Amino acid sequence: MTRKEERLLPEVERAVRAPEELVVVGKRIPKSDALYKVLGQAQYIYDMQLPGMLYGKILWSERAHAKIISIDTSEAEKVPGVRAVITAQNTPEIRIGFMKDQPVLKKDKVRSFRDEVAAVAATSWEAAEEAISRIKVVYEDLPGIFSPEEAMEEGAPLIHEMDARGKELKDNRIRLPWKLVCGDLEKGKAEATCTVTTSYEVPAVNHCCMGTSACIASFDAGDNLTIYDITQIPSLAKADFLEALKAMGAKGRVRVITPTIGGGFGSKLDTYGYQYIAMLLSHRTKRPVKIVFTREEEFFATSPRQQAKFTITQGCDKEGYLTFREVNATLDNGAYISWGATTPSVMMMPMSSLYRVPNIEFKSTCIYTNNTWAQAMRGYGNPQATFAIDCNMDELAEKAGIDPVEFRRRNANIPGEETPQGFLPRTCGHRECLEAVVEKMGYEGRQSGIVEGTPKARGMGVASLIHVGGGAKIYRSDGCATSIKIDDDGWVDVFSGSQDIGQGLDTVLRQIVAEVLGFKPEKVKIHVGDTDTCGWDAGCHASRSTFVAGNSAKVCAEIVRAQMVANFAAQLEVAEDAISITEGEVLAQTDDPDKQVTKVERLLRRAHMTGRGNTMFMASNFWEPNNKLLAGDFHGNFSMAYTYGVHGVELEVDTETGQVDVINYVAAHDIGKAINPMLLDGQAYGGIMQGIGYALTEEMLFDKGKLLNPNFRDYKILTCLDVVPIEAIIVETDDPEGPFGAKGVGEPGLVPVAPAIANAIYDAVGIRLRRLPMTPDRVLEALWAKAGKAIA
Amino acid sequence: MTRKEERLLPEVERAVRAPEELVVVGKRIPKSDALYKVLGQAQYIYDMQLPGMLYGKILWSERAHAKIISIDTSEAEKVPGVRAVITAQNTPEIRIGFMKDQPVLKKDKVRSFRDEVAAVAATSWEAAEEAISRIKVVYEDLPGIFSPEEAMEEGAPLIHEMDARGKELKDNRIRLPWKLVCGDLEKGKAEATCTVTTSYEVPAVNHCCMGTSACIASFDAGDNLTIYDITQIPSLAKADFLEALKAMGAKGRVRVITPTIGGGFGSKLDTYGYQYIAMLLSHRTKRPVKIVFTREEEFFATSPRQQAKFTITQGCDKEGYLTFREVNATLDNGAYISWGATTPSVMMMPMSSLYRVPNIEFKSTCIYTNNTWAQAMRGYGNPQATFAIDCNMDELAEKAGIDPVEFRRRNANIPGEETPQGFLPRTCGHRECLEAVVEKMGYEGRQSGIVEGTPKARGMGVASLIHVGGGAKIYRSDGCATSIKIDDDGWVDVFSGSQDIGQGLDTVLRQIVAEVLGFKPEKVKIHVGDTDTCGWDAGCHASRSTFVAGNSAKVCAEIVRAQMVANFAAQLEVAEDAISITEGEVLAQTDDPDKQVTKVERLLRRAHMTGRGNTMFMASNFWEPNNKLLAGDFHGNFSMAYTYGVHGVELEVDTETGQVDVINYVAAHDIGKAINPMLLDGQAYGGIMQGIGYALTEEMLFDKGKLLNPNFRDYKILTCLDVVPIEAIIVETDDPEGPFGAKGVGEPGLVPVAPAIANAIYDAVGIRLRRLPMTPDRVLEALWAKAGKAIA
Repeated sequence: MTRKEERLLPEVERAVRAPEELVVVGKRIPKSDALYKVLGQAQYIYDMQLPGMLYGKILWSERAHAKIISIDTSEAEKVPGVRAVITAQNTPEIRIGFMKDQPVLKKDKVRSFRDEVAAVAATSWEAAEEAISRIKVVYEDLPGIFSPEEAMEEGAPLIHEMDARGKELKDNRIRLPWKLVCGDLEKGKAEATCTVTTSYEVPAVNHCCMGTSACIASFDAGDNLTIYDITQIPSLAKADFLEALKAMGAKGRVRVITPTIGGGFGSKLDTYGYQYIAMLLSHRTKRPVKIVFTREEEFFATSPRQQAKFTITQGCDKEGYLTFREVNATLDNGAYISWGATTPSVMMMPMSSLYRVPNIEFKSTCIYTNNTWAQAMRGYGNPQATFAIDCNMDELAEKAGIDPVEFRRRNANIPGEETPQGFLPRTCGHRECLEAVVEKMGYEGRQSGIVEGTPKARGMGVASLIHVGGGAKIYRSDGCATSIKIDDDGWVDVFSGSQDIGQGLDTVLRQIVAEVLGFKPEKVKIHVGDTDTCGWDAGCHASRSTFVAGNSAKVCAEIVRAQMVANFAAQLEVAEDAISITEGEVLAQTDDPDKQVTKVERLLRRAHMTGRGNTMFMASNFWEPNNKLLAGDFHGNFSMAYTYGVHGVELEVDTETGQVDVINYVAAHDIGKAINPMLLDGQAYGGIMQGIGYALTEEMLFDKGKLLNPNFRDYKILTCLDVVPIEAIIVETDDPEGPFGAKGVGEPGLVPVAPAIANAIYDAVGIRLRRLPMTPDRVLEALWAKAGKAIA
Repeated sequence: MTRKEERLLPEVERAVRAPEELVVVGKRIPKSDALYKVLGQAQYIYDMQLPGMLYGKILWSERAHAKIISIDTSEAEKVPGVRAVITAQNTPEIRIGFMKDQPVLKKDKVRSFRDEVAAVAATSWEAAEEAISRIKVVYEDLPGIFSPEEAMEEGAPLIHEMDARGKELKDNRIRLPWKLVCGDLEKGKAEATCTVTTSYEVPAVNHCCMGTSACIASFDAGDNLTIYDITQIPSLAKADFLEALKAMGAKGRVRVITPTIGGGFGSKLDTYGYQYIAMLLSHRTKRPVKIVFTREEEFFATSPRQQAKFTITQGCDKEGYLTFREVNATLDNGAYISWGATTPSVMMMPMSSLYRVPNIEFKSTCIYTNNTWAQAMRGYGNPQATFAIDCNMDELAEKAGIDPVEFRRRNANIPGEETPQGFLPRTCGHRECLEAVVEKMGYEGRQSGIVEGTPKARGMGVASLIHVGGGAKIYRSDGCATSIKIDDDGWVDVFSGSQDIGQGLDTVLRQIVAEVLGFKPEKVKIHVGDTDTCGWDAGCHASRSTFVAGNSAKVCAEIVRAQMVANFAAQLEVAEDAISITEGEVLAQTDDPDKQVTKVERLLRRAHMTGRGNTMFMASNFWEPNNKLLAGDFHGNFSMAYTYGVHGVELEVDTETGQVDVINYVAAHDIGKAINPMLLDGQAYGGIMQGIGYALTEEMLFDKGKLLNPNFRDYKILTCLDVVPIEAIIVETDDPEGPFGAKGVGEPGLVPVAPAIANAIYDAVGIRLRRLPMTPDRVLEALWAKAGKAIA
C-alpha cells in the first residue's frame, strides 16, 4: 500500500450503535462544585482543623551539595509548644521515588536546596518556625553541579555515589534507557530532499497550583493512618504510604482522603517528603500533624517541569511528505528521581506519531544535577517535545518552500493508520481540526508583517498535537473502579476511584451516570477521593479520567440499570425492552395508561418494600482498558484512543519593546464527543493560558541551584488581566471506545501553544525564537541580531 | 396431635451444612472500637466542631397544657451573637411522628412540658441561652390530664382536638387497635383447674444514654442537608428528613452521618423535634447548627419507656399446663405519638408465645395524657409484659402447688412448634436455658428465708424470655444492604446499612466477613452510619442486627469470595473447589509446592495487575429476611428466629431496711451461635444491670407532668459500684437461618430481670411486689403489711 493510498483509508469500522437521543450527555451543565467554590463552601485542606492537631515545619538544606556533619536539635526542643523534632538520626529510614533514590530525611549528605534535613511538630505555626530556626546543622560543602553538561563531564563529582540497591554509580546519568527507533532512519534520510536541524530549549516551570502543597497525617491508637492529602493518585499514594508504615513498624491500615484540591497539573502525581514527614511526626506525637507549604516553599520545594534541550532534524521529500525525524533530548532531572525522569516516555508519542513520519529515532538522557528535582506537568513531556517538533516543522516547510499550513495538511494524521510506534487511533480528527482553525482565523487571507504606521507587526502561526485520549498504560493496571447505589428515594451515590482536581470530572461522571440510568443529573452525586469508600484507580493523569473513569462509571451504571429495568418490567408486567427511563420517569410500552409513565422513585420504593431478595439496586465494577504496556522498545498501543488538535494564533510583536500580544487564539480539538462542552471550553481556555505563560513569560530562575524568583510576581505567572480572546472549537469523531464516544482532553490545551506562538512571531517579524519563554528581551535581542544591531 | 405429643416433636430439619472449622467466628475478639473509646479517640458528636457552626437552644413549654396566646422574640433577637430566633409563626410547619400528630414547633397550644415553643441559633451557647431566657410567651392554661384514668373519664378535656388529617377526635384514646386473640379463651378458662388474676404496674424509665441527644444540621448552598446525628435508624431518618426538606422548600439531598453513639436502647428509633429545629435554624442561617441536650433536658425532653398497668389472669390444668392467658394493659402514651405507642405490638409476643399457652386474649389501650410522650426502650414492651406474665406464673404455680421451676419446665417452649400467634421457632433452647440456670445457681438445694442471726432473708427466683432473634418485620422492609470492596493490598472495606450504637455490631460483622473471606479480622473494616456510603437498613432495633445485617454481610462476602476463588483458581491452575482461604493464606490442593500456599495479597495484586476486566473484587447485596408483616389480627411469623432465655437470681432482703441486694445472678440465653462470646457477655451484663435498675431503683417521678428528678442521682441509676456477680451462660442451638447459626440478643438481657427479682423476693420474705421499682420503702411497706404493722 502506498502512502497516498493509506491517506485514503476509510475510518475504521465503528462499533454499531443505535442512534441515541442524549438527554444529559452533551449538555452545558455547570460544574457540580462551582457554587460551593464560589461561596467558599468547598473544603480545602487549609481550612481543615482536627482536634489536637499539631503544625509541622521542615528545615530545608542550606546548601546545594554538602555533607551533613552534624545536626543539633537541642535548642529547638526547648521551644515551648514543640512536641517533636525529627531528623534522619531519630526516625526510621523511608525511601521514596520510583527508583527509591531518596530518603525522606537526609542523613549523610544533601543534594539540593530542597533537601529535607529536619522537621518539627508544634502546637502553633509560630512555635514550629521558631524551633526550625534554632536547629543547627554543620555542613561540609561539596562541589555543586547545576547543568546536565557539567554533570556529564568526565570526572564530574557524583550526586549519588550508589543506587538504592547499593550498587556503585560511575556517573550522573540516570539509568533509564529512553530510546525509540521506528522504521529506518537512514532510509528516511536518503529519501529526504530537504532537511532542517534545529535546537530548542525549554525552562523549568512550576505548576503554580493556587493551593500549595499540604497534608494532615493522623495516626490513631490502632496505628492506622488517615492522611488528608491533596493528591492526584489516591490509590497509588495509599500503596506508597502502606510501604512507609511497614518501614515505621506500624501495622495498621491507610486511608487517603482528598479534600477539595486547588490545582494539580501533574504536581501531585507522586508522594513527597513532606507527606512522610507529617506521618513520622504524627506517629511520634500520636496527634494529627498538618504541613502546609508557603508559596515560597511551593516554588522551591516542589518538583517542576524540567529544563530540557532538544536537537531535532526532520526531512521531507519533494512533495513535502516527511521522511524522517531524529531527535536528541537532554533533561535536567535534578537531584532525585520522580516521574519527571519518565517524561521521555511520553515525548516519544509526538516524536513518533505527531504528523505522519515513517522513520524515527528519539533519544533522551536524564541527568542528575544539584538542582531541584523534576516532576511531570500537564502534557508530561509532550509540550516540550511538540515545541521542538512543530517549530522545526515550520522551518522545514519554509526551506521546502511550502506554506506551513499546507505542509501540515500534507502530513496530518489520519484515522485507522497504525503509527510507527504502534498506536492505533481508531478516530482522528487532525485534518478537521486543521481546516477548522485555518478557516476560523482567516489564515488564507492574512496580512503578516508591520501594521502600517505602527511599530507593531502581526503574524499567524499554527501547531498541532496528539495526546493519549483513551488512558495510558503506564502502570500495569490502567483501570478504574466504580460503585453505584440507588436509594429507594431515587437519590444516587456513585463512588469512583478517580480523582477530581478541579477539572470537572465529577460533573462528567454525573452526566454519564444520569444518562445511562435515565435520571436527572441533580439526583446523582459523585464521590471521589477516599480510598476507603472508593475503589482503585490509576490516578488523575494522562488525560485518562473521562475515558477510563467514564467508561467504568458507564458500565457500572449499565449493570444497575439492567437490575432496575428487570424489576420494573416485572412490576409493570411488560417486557424489559418495553421499558425506557428518562429524566426520572419510567416509560413503558403498554396499553394500560396507568403504567405508561411512572416516577422512578415510585417503582424503586415499591421494589424495595414489596420485594424479596436483592431489591435495592447497587453494583460495583472495575474497568480495565484494553490498552498495552509499552514493550521494552517502547512500541505498542498504550492508549485506547488518541486526541488530536490544532492551534492557531494571531499575534502582534512590538518591534520597539519586544512585547508579544496575542490578539486571537483559535484551538480545535478532536475529543471524540463532548460530554460537557462548557467543561471542554474550560479545559481549552485554561490549557491555552498556561501555554501562553510557558511560551512568553514563565521561568524558574536558578543561581547555582537556588531559586531566585519563588513568587508569582517575579516568576511572572499570567493573571486574569492577561487573558486573551480564545475560540475553542470542538471536533467530534465519536470514538467507538470512549464513553458516549468521548476521548480525554485534560492536557492537550497546553501542548501546542508555544510552537504556534513561536511560528506566529516568525510570521510577524521573521525571527526564530528557539528558547522559552519568549520574553521581550529575547524578542528584542533576536530582532536586533536580525537587523545586525548590537545588543544594547 | 395432643399437646404431649407436640412436646416430643423433634427439632425441625436443619439446612444441611458441612461441618465447619470456624477460625474467626466464635472467638472472643475485643470490640473494634474499644481502644479508641478508652483512649478518647472515638469521635462523639459533642467533640465535633464545624467551621462557622452556631449553637442552638430550645425554649420548652412552661405549662403542661395551655393555649399559646403570644410569643414575643424581639428581646431575644437583640442579644449579641444571635443569628436566628424561630417559632411556629416564622417557619414552615413540619409534622412528625408516625401518626403526624405533632408539629415540630408548637403553634396554638402546648400539650406537655417538653413541647418546643421557640428556638435560637447563636454564636455561643451562652448567647443562645440568654436569648432563650428573653423570649416572652403568654399562655392561657388548660386543665391538665396526667393519668390514663383521668384521660378516659367521660368529658375529660381533649389533648388533641383533631388528628393530623383534620378529623375531630372525641376522646383521648389513641386509635391503635391493639388486640390479639389466639385460640378460644372461654375454652381455656373452662379447662383451667386453677386460676390467678393479678395486676402489675411499671413506671416510666429513661434510657439514660451516657451521650445526650445531639445533632449538627448543616445545609450547603445547594440546599443539601448533612446532618450529624446520633440515630439508630440512619435510613429511616433520612427518609423523614427528606420529607421535612419538602416542607421547607429545599430541593437538595439528605446525608445522615452518625458519629460514635453513646448509647441507644431504643431512644433513637425516631426523629425528634430538636433535629428538625437544628435543620430549620441551619436553613435560615446558612450555617451548621449544633444542638446538644443538657442532662436535665435529656431526662425531661426525651421519650421514656412508658408507665403501664397490666391485669393478667392465667389458668392451668391439674397437671400444671397453662390453658389460657388473659391480659389487659393500659399505657400512658403522653402527649404525642412515637413508637412508644406501638409497644403493645411487641408485648403480644410474650403474651402469646412465652411458655406454651393455647388460648390467649390480650388487649392494650394507649392513652394521650399531658405527660411526656413515650418511646420504645430495650425490649420494646417485652420487659413490661414479661414482668406481668412471669410474676403471675409464680403466683399461679404457688396456687397450683407446683414448684415455680417445675411449673416453668412443664410449660417451657419447644422448637418447631408454631406458637398461637403464628411464630415458627425453628430453634428453641428454652428448656436448656432453664436447666442450665437451675443447675448453676443450685436451685434445688436452696435455703430460702432468714439467714440465721441476721435480719436478712435469702431467696431465689427465675423468669423466662422470648424475643425476636431473626429480624422483626415492623416496616415493610426488614432488610439490610452491604457492600464489600477488597483492595489489591488485601485490606477490606465493608459498608453496612446497619448501625452500631455501642453494642459491637461492627465487631460481629468484621468476624462474619473475615470468616467467609478467610481473611484475618484486622484486615476487615466495617463502615456504618453514613447514608451516602452505606445502603438501606431498617435500623438498629428488635435485636435484629446480628441476624439481618450479619446475613446480609455474609451473603455479600460469599459473593466476593466466589469472585476471588474463581480468579485464584485460574491463577493457580486448579479447580475452584481445590481452593480454600484461611487467615489470609490461599491453600490450593495441587502437587506444585509453589502453589500450595500463597499470601492472598499476592494473588489479589496479580489478579489486578495482570488481569483483564473485572479484576478487583467488589460486590453489593441487599438481604431481605423471609419474615412476614403481622396481619391485621397480629398473627404471623414476623421474625425468622426467636431467642429464648431464663434468668435466675439469688438475693438478700434486709427485713429492717427493705434493701434488696442481688447476691448472684445467672442468665442463660439461647442465641443460636455465639459469633463473639465476649460481646454476648457484655450484652447480658449490660441488660441485666439495666434490668436490675428497672426492678429496684429507677423511676421518673412526675408532678402534674413536670419531671421531679431529672438527674442520675435522684433518678437513681445504678453505677459501676452497684454491679453484681453475673454468670452469662450461652446456649447454642445453631439456628438454620442465622449467620453461622446466630440469633439476635441485643435486648433479651433486660427482659426477665424484674420478674426474676420479684419472684426471688417472694421466695425470701413472702411478699408479692407488683409495682416497679421495688424500692426499700415499698419492700418495707409490704413487709409491714404482711406482718400487720402500720406504716410509719
